[in-house]
Amino acid sequence: MKEDVRLIEVKEDILADNEKLANQIRSEFNQAKTLLLNLMSSPGAGKTTLILKTIEMLKQDLKIGVIEADIDSMVDSHKVAAAGRPAVQLRTGGFCHVDATMVKSGLEHMDWQNQDIVFIENVGNLVCPAEFDTGANKKVMILSVPEGDDKPLKYPLMFSICDVLIVSKLDYLPYSDFDIEAMQQRVKKLNPNIHIFELSCKTGKGVDAWINWLKNESGDANSNI
Amino acid sequence: MKEDVRLIEVKEDILADNEKLANQIRSEFNQAKTLLLNLMSSPGAGKTTLILKTIEMLKQDLKIGVIEADIDSMVDSHKVAAAGRPAVQLRTGGFCHVDATMVKSGLEHMDWQNQDIVFIENVGNLVCPAEFDTGANKKVMILSVPEGDDKPLKYPLMFSICDVLIVSKLDYLPYSDFDIEAMQQRVKKLNPNIHIFELSCKTGKGVDAWINWLKNESGDANSNI
Repeated sequence: MKEDVRLIEVKEDILADNEKLANQIRSEFNQAKTLLLNLMSSPGAGKTTLILKTIEMLKQDLKIGVIEADIDSMVDSHKVAAAGRPAVQLRTGGFCHVDATMVKSGLEHMDWQNQDIVFIENVGNLVCPAEFDTGANKKVMILSVPEGDDKPLKYPLMFSICDVLIVSKLDYLPYSDFDIEAMQQRVKKLNPNIHIFELSCKTGKGVDAWINWLKNESGDANSNI
Repeated sequence: MKEDVRLIEVKEDILADNEKLANQIRSEFNQAKTLLLNLMSSPGAGKTTLILKTIEMLKQDLKIGVIEADIDSMVDSHKVAAAGRPAVQLRTGGFCHVDATMVKSGLEHMDWQNQDIVFIENVGNLVCPAEFDTGANKKVMILSVPEGDDKPLKYPLMFSICDVLIVSKLDYLPYSDFDIEAMQQRVKKLNPNIHIFELSCKTGKGVDAWINWLKNESGDANSNI
């Protein structure tokens, strides 16, 4: 019997098209002097909590908008709206990551040119989001203390591609066997230039350093042209 | 203040059809009277810890084998092997879930017919694994207390398709605002027949009920034919 096999390379085409659109989004953000951040983590690591804390601490200084992505529910975007900032909810309907096309459709519903910073709160997932360029200027990931210090060994791509790692829920540290030094070594081995911030949004410990980094990056974005 | 929230529906066709192979695996497990369990959760919710605790508590009664799936690293399979049980490591190399084909190739390297229970430890991910039938007889998910009680709202498919929900890391409860009753209501609304076990592998609290459920299921598997 003649072998009836066809091979279609879908992934590469999708990634190439995505790349083009992502670069276009990045260029528009550079022109508008707005900083676009892609925030990624496991479910429940504290993405929304970090965004809300950041909005609270920067409300006198910087205007922040948020694109929320969730499989379902609008819980997070309502929280952002309650904090007085514009939110767009992308209901991904089973999609496990955010790509540039989704970001573009989200941006069409936001006055993003008048924001200093726009967060993309990605789907809670340490795998798929790492592979898709959203057009963000910087990629930020959160690892929460209860998840454990071995995550860089298991999800190396995510730790490799991010500009910033935020170690969250530091208030759980006394009740956990999380080894900060071992985690740092594992991360730096994958990504020597990553900025690591260790903080607790609950107690406020360590949040200042993250806020200062954001202010600097936003300033850089504003002096871009 | 007017609430500024917009909702955009992003649509996508996913879903590979591995149903046929999954059914074949299930049928072989039924014939061999071995129980195949698909264990899913976010990264760091405690899949490996639960498996190791289960092996320890059942070592006099039942033979357990494990198929470990990770993007990278063999950390988990070495832990299972150190506990004296057969482990096969599937290195998924970027793949975000386990499907029936991967399970089949893992089983080729294990004397699974002589086990009472085989765990598939899926990739840490609350999204993609929910969509793929691995051939398991039962689907078990873990939600750890630090992830928060709102996860059923955000990842409804995973909570809908599982036979068992294990709420893990109960020892973190005193330091968390996790609302057990609210979580239970959200889960039962999605999946009225799900079995919920609340436990801590660290303190041992609640583990017995899970072990008894497993013994019963394994007994049923043994009296299947």
